[in-house]
Amino acid sequence: MKTISENRCFGGVQGVYTAASEACHCEMTFGLFLPEAARARPVPVLWYLSGLTCTHENAMVKAGAQAAAAHYGIALVFPDTSPRGEDVADDDAYDLGQGAGFYVNATQDPWAQNYRMWDYVCAELPALIGAEFAVDLDRQAITGHSMGGHGALTIAMANPDRFASVSAFAPIANPSKSDWGRKQLGAYLGADEAAWARHDSTLQMQAVGFDGPILIDQGGSDQFLDLLRPEALAQAMAARRQEAAFRMQKGYDHSYFFVSSFMEDHVAFHAEALGA
Amino acid sequence: MKTISENRCFGGVQGVYTAASEACHCEMTFGLFLPEAARARPVPVLWYLSGLTCTHENAMVKAGAQAAAAHYGIALVFPDTSPRGEDVADDDAYDLGQGAGFYVNATQDPWAQNYRMWDYVCAELPALIGAEFAVDLDRQAITGHSMGGHGALTIAMANPDRFASVSAFAPIANPSKSDWGRKQLGAYLGADEAAWARHDSTLQMQAVGFDGPILIDQGGSDQFLDLLRPEALAQAMAARRQEAAFRMQKGYDHSYFFVSSFMEDHVAFHAEALGA
Repeated sequence: MKTISENRCFGGVQGVYTAASEACHCEMTFGLFLPEAARARPVPVLWYLSGLTCTHENAMVKAGAQAAAAHYGIALVFPDTSPRGEDVADDDAYDLGQGAGFYVNATQDPWAQNYRMWDYVCAELPALIGAEFAVDLDRQAITGHSMGGHGALTIAMANPDRFASVSAFAPIANPSKSDWGRKQLGAYLGADEAAWARHDSTLQMQAVGFDGPILIDQGGSDQFLDLLRPEALAQAMAARRQEAAFRMQKGYDHSYFFVSSFMEDHVAFHAEALGA
Repeated sequence: MKTISENRCFGGVQGVYTAASEACHCEMTFGLFLPEAARARPVPVLWYLSGLTCTHENAMVKAGAQAAAAHYGIALVFPDTSPRGEDVADDDAYDLGQGAGFYVNATQDPWAQNYRMWDYVCAELPALIGAEFAVDLDRQAITGHSMGGHGALTIAMANPDRFASVSAFAPIANPSKSDWGRKQLGAYLGADEAAWARHDSTLQMQAVGFDGPILIDQGGSDQFLDLLRPEALAQAMAARRQEAAFRMQKGYDHSYFFVSSFMEDHVAFHAEALGA
C-alpha cells in the first residue's frame, strides 16, 4: 500500500492510498477518513460507494461526511467506482467501463479481466483496511449515491450479518428495468437476466430483504427519477415489511448539494446501528 | 443577470449566476446560497473570498458552509477571484492574472483594464445581490481563505461600519513582505509601496484596526507558513488590543480539509455578530 496524501481534517486524517488489486488486476486508489478516536482503539467503518463518473475523490471532498464521522468516531472508506488504467477496457460512454463498474464481477469480454468491483469492495479492500488501519471490521455499515446506492443495497443484502445498517442517496433501485442497468448488466454479466438478480436491489428486497434498518433519501426533483425507479424499491420494502425509512425530499436534485444536505442524518443513522 | 444553475441545498438554494461587470469589463460569475429563511424576510450576508487559482466554485462545493448558514439563516456569497475571459490579460504563473486578482484595483498595464476586484467586491456585487435577492445589506460579515483571507481583512478594515465581523482561514497576512504579495502588488499597483499599504492587513491593523470581532484560524502544518506570515498579523492584533481570536490549529495544512474543519465555528462566530 502506498500513501498518496494525508490531510488533517476534523481532528482526524483524510488519507488517499493506492494498492495493487488482485481482484481488478490494476492499481486501485481509495480514500479513508480515520477519526481521532482511532488513536485509542479500532473504530467502526462506514463504506461510501460513489456514482457514475466518480472516482474515490468526489464524495471525499463534496459530501461533507467527515464532520459527523469525527463526531461519532467512525471511519469512512471511499473506494473508486471501477478499475483504472490504460490497459483496462473502457467505453466512450460515461455510463460503461471506467467510472461505471456497477459493483459487479464481470463475466463477459472485454470486461471480465478487470471489472471485479464486487470482490474488490466485498473482500479485498476490507481485508486491506483491516490490516493497515485501526478499524473494527465487526462493526460495518454501508451507504452510497446513485450507482453507489445500488452497490450499497445489493452488497448489504448479499452479505447478511456483515453490515449493521445500509442507506442510500438516490440509488439506482431497479436496474434490470432501467437504461441505467440493462445496458451495463448485459455488458458485464451477459444476456441471461438470471445473473442480474443479485444486482437489482428491488429484486433482492423481494427475495431476501435486509436484517437491519435501511434509510433511503431521494430528491423529488431528481432529473434521473425515471432511470432510478425509486417507486419499485419503495413498494418492495413496504410489501416485505422491511424496517426502513424511505424519504422523498421535495425540491432536491441528483447533485452533491442533495447528498451533503442529508449526510449528517445518514451518519447519525449508521452510528446508532453501530453503537458508535 | 443570468442564472447558470440552482440546486436545493440544506433547505435553501445554492445558485450560480453571471452578470456583465462594469468594474471588470467582462462577464463575472458568482455563487450565492440563500437559506430557507430568506423566503420570509431579507437575511444577513456572509461573504466568502477564495484563494489563488480558485473560481466561485471551490468553496461552494468543498467548504461545507451551507449547513451552518442554513441553520443560522444567513446568505453566502462566493465571488470569483479575478476577471475572466480570452480578452482579459493573464500570466503563465498560477499566482498572477486570472485566478489571482488579489482584491485590488490595478493601476498598471496590462492589468488596469479589467483587474478591479476591489470595486467589484466592495461596490458592484453588493448592489447587484441587494437588488436581485432577499438579502439585508445592513447586516454583512466577511471571511476568506488564503488570498481571500487577505481580501476579507483588508476590505473589512477599509470599509468601517459595513461588516459586523471579519474572519479568515490562513490569510496572506503581510503581503508587502512576502513573495505572495510583492510580485502581485508590484504588478497591479506599481513600484511605489505607499499604494500597497491598504492591501496589507498587518499594516492596516497597525494603522486603523477593525471595529468589531475578528477570528483567524491558521494551520500549524500549513505548507505556506513562510509566505502567509501569520506572526506579523498576530503581533499587530495583540499590539493594538484588537478584539480578536487568533488560533494556531495543530497539524492542519492549507487545504479545504482544514477550511471545512473550522467552517462551522466561523459561521457561528459571524452569526453572533450579525444577531442571526
